[in-house]
Amino acid sequence: LEFKILGTGSATPLLDRNPSAFMLSIDNYLILIDCGEGVQQRFLQHKIKYSRINHIFISHLHGDHYFGLIGLISSFNMNKRTEPLYIFGPNGLNDIISMQLKLSNSKLNFNLVFTIINPEVSETIIENDVFKIDTIPLKHRVPCTGFLVIKKASKRKILSNLLPENFPISYIKRLVDGENVFDELSGKSYLNIDYTAEGNKEKRFAYCSDTIFDLSIIDKIMNVDLLYHEATFLTEQQNRAEVTYHSTAAQAAQIAAKANVKKLIIGHFSSRYKTLEQFYIESTAVFVPSHLAVEGESYII
Amino acid sequence: LEFKILGTGSATPLLDRNPSAFMLSIDNYLILIDCGEGVQQRFLQHKIKYSRINHIFISHLHGDHYFGLIGLISSFNMNKRTEPLYIFGPNGLNDIISMQLKLSNSKLNFNLVFTIINPEVSETIIENDVFKIDTIPLKHRVPCTGFLVIKKASKRKILSNLLPENFPISYIKRLVDGENVFDELSGKSYLNIDYTAEGNKEKRFAYCSDTIFDLSIIDKIMNVDLLYHEATFLTEQQNRAEVTYHSTAAQAAQIAAKANVKKLIIGHFSSRYKTLEQFYIESTAVFVPSHLAVEGESYII
Repeated sequence: LEFKILGTGSATPLLDRNPSAFMLSIDNYLILIDCGEGVQQRFLQHKIKYSRINHIFISHLHGDHYFGLIGLISSFNMNKRTEPLYIFGPNGLNDIISMQLKLSNSKLNFNLVFTIINPEVSETIIENDVFKIDTIPLKHRVPCTGFLVIKKASKRKILSNLLPENFPISYIKRLVDGENVFDELSGKSYLNIDYTAEGNKEKRFAYCSDTIFDLSIIDKIMNVDLLYHEATFLTEQQNRAEVTYHSTAAQAAQIAAKANVKKLIIGHFSSRYKTLEQFYIESTAVFVPSHLAVEGESYII
Repeated sequence: LEFKILGTGSATPLLDRNPSAFMLSIDNYLILIDCGEGVQQRFLQHKIKYSRINHIFISHLHGDHYFGLIGLISSFNMNKRTEPLYIFGPNGLNDIISMQLKLSNSKLNFNLVFTIINPEVSETIIENDVFKIDTIPLKHRVPCTGFLVIKKASKRKILSNLLPENFPISYIKRLVDGENVFDELSGKSYLNIDYTAEGNKEKRFAYCSDTIFDLSIIDKIMNVDLLYHEATFLTEQQNRAEVTYHSTAAQAAQIAAKANVKKLIIGHFSSRYKTLEQFYIESTAVFVPSHLAVEGESYII
C-alpha cells in the first residue's frame, strides 16, 4: 500500500503548493483521492501512468478537492479510454460533470459510474479481494467524507521449495486457504503449518480532509498504520480554524495520538504560511511520528 | 497593447504546454482571454497581479479554454475581491459556474456579471474610451467566438514645454481634442498644430481559437497589427484538422497572408507533436512574419 502526495495546499494555490490530490497504489490498483485543479500536470511531473486509475474518491465539493476532475475525465476520453471509471463522491458531483460534458458536446468512449456517498454515516463503499474502503463522516462547511482504506491480509504463502514436484494445484490452493491436505494415493499428510508461512498482515490507511477538530472520528481510525489529517492552520489561528471548520497542526496531532495511529502526515496548509517549520514543531510536540506532506513524496505501508 | 501567452497546448496538456490562456494589457486594463486549467499557477509563475483582472473572455466551452475559470473565481473570492468581474462567454457558462458555487455553498463578495455571446454574428460586446472588442464568429465543433480587440487612437499629445506657464487646463483639454484656442485676455491664438503632436494610432489585435480553416473571417481581421490563430496540426494531419474543426500551421498562415496582417502568432499545438520546428517551417513558408507561441512571452503592439 503506497500513498503518494500530489498536493499540499488548500483553497489558494502557491507555486510549490498545489490543491489536494493523492494517489494510492494497492497491489495493481491505482486510486486517486481528491482531484484538485492541475492534477494532470502533477501526473506528468511525477511520472504517474494515470490511465491506470479506475477509481476516484472525492471528499467534498470545495474546489481545491475536485476542480481537476472534469479535465481528467476529458483527457481520459481524448486518450481513447474504454475502461469504466468509478467515481465516489458527494451528491451534485454527477450533475456538475454531466452538465460540462453536455455543453462541450462530449460523448465519452467509456462508462462513468458514479456512486453518491452518504455523508452522514460510515459505510463500506467498495470491497474486493484486495481492499475495502469505508467512509468516515467529517464535519466541514459542506458535506464531507474521509476514507478508511483497508488492504486485506493476504492468504498464507506457500513454501514451494518444500513441496514434492508435480504437487497438485488444488492441494496448493487448500494449503494457502489454511487447510491441511491428506493425499490418499501416497497416504501422506501435508500439514498447513509445515508448508506455508504467514501472509501479509492487514494494512490500514485513513484520509481525513477537510474537517474541524472532531473526536468522533477516533473510533473509526483507531490504530491505523498511516493517518493523513488536514492541518490548515497553526495554533495562533485556532479560532479561525473553528470558524472555517478546519484543524490546526496540534489538533491533527491530538487526533493521531488519541487514535494511537502509527504515523501521521499533515497537509492542506493555508497559503498564508510561506514556510512550514512551525507546523512540524506544533505537531511533533503532541505526536512524535508526525510528518509534513511534501509534494511528490510517497509513504509505503 | 501587450499580449502575453500563458498556454500553448490544446486538449491534453504536456509538462511545458498548458491549456489556452492569454493576458491582454491595454493601458491600465488587464484582460484575460480564455482560462484553461491551472491558470492561477501561470499567474504565479509569470508574476502577474491577477487581482487586477476585471474582464474575462471565453471563446467556447471546450475544457482547455475554460476549466480554470471556476478556480479563479473561487480564489478571487478567497482573496476578498469586491470589484465586479465581467465575464463574456457562450451560453451555458453561467450555469456551470453558478451550479458549482451553489454546491460549494459559496457566497461571492463581488458581482459576477455575465454577458452571453451570440456566436452567430459579429458584434461589439464592450466599448469604452480606451478599447473596443468585437466578436468574430468561428467555425468549431461547438459555438465558438474569436475576439477583435481595438485599442483606440489616443487624442493628440500636448507639447507642454511650448506652452506659457499657468496655461489653463480647459485650454489644454481643447487643444488635445483637436481644437484651436483663442485667449480673449491676451488676444493670442494657440493653434492646435503648433502645440500638439499626433497621438498613438489605433492598434488592432485578433484572437482566433479554435477554428477550422475559414476564409469568412478575413474581412473581420483585415490589416490587424497582430493575429493569434490556432494551429493545432501540421499539414500531414490536414484531414484530421478538418474532421475536428481545427487548422494547420499552413492554413493559419494563409489566413494571415490573405488578411494582410502585420504579424502572426500560432499556438494551440496538439500534444502529439513533441517538438514544434515543423510548425515554424510550414507557417513561415506561407507567411514570413509568423511566430510560434511560447509560454511566458509577450508581444507589444
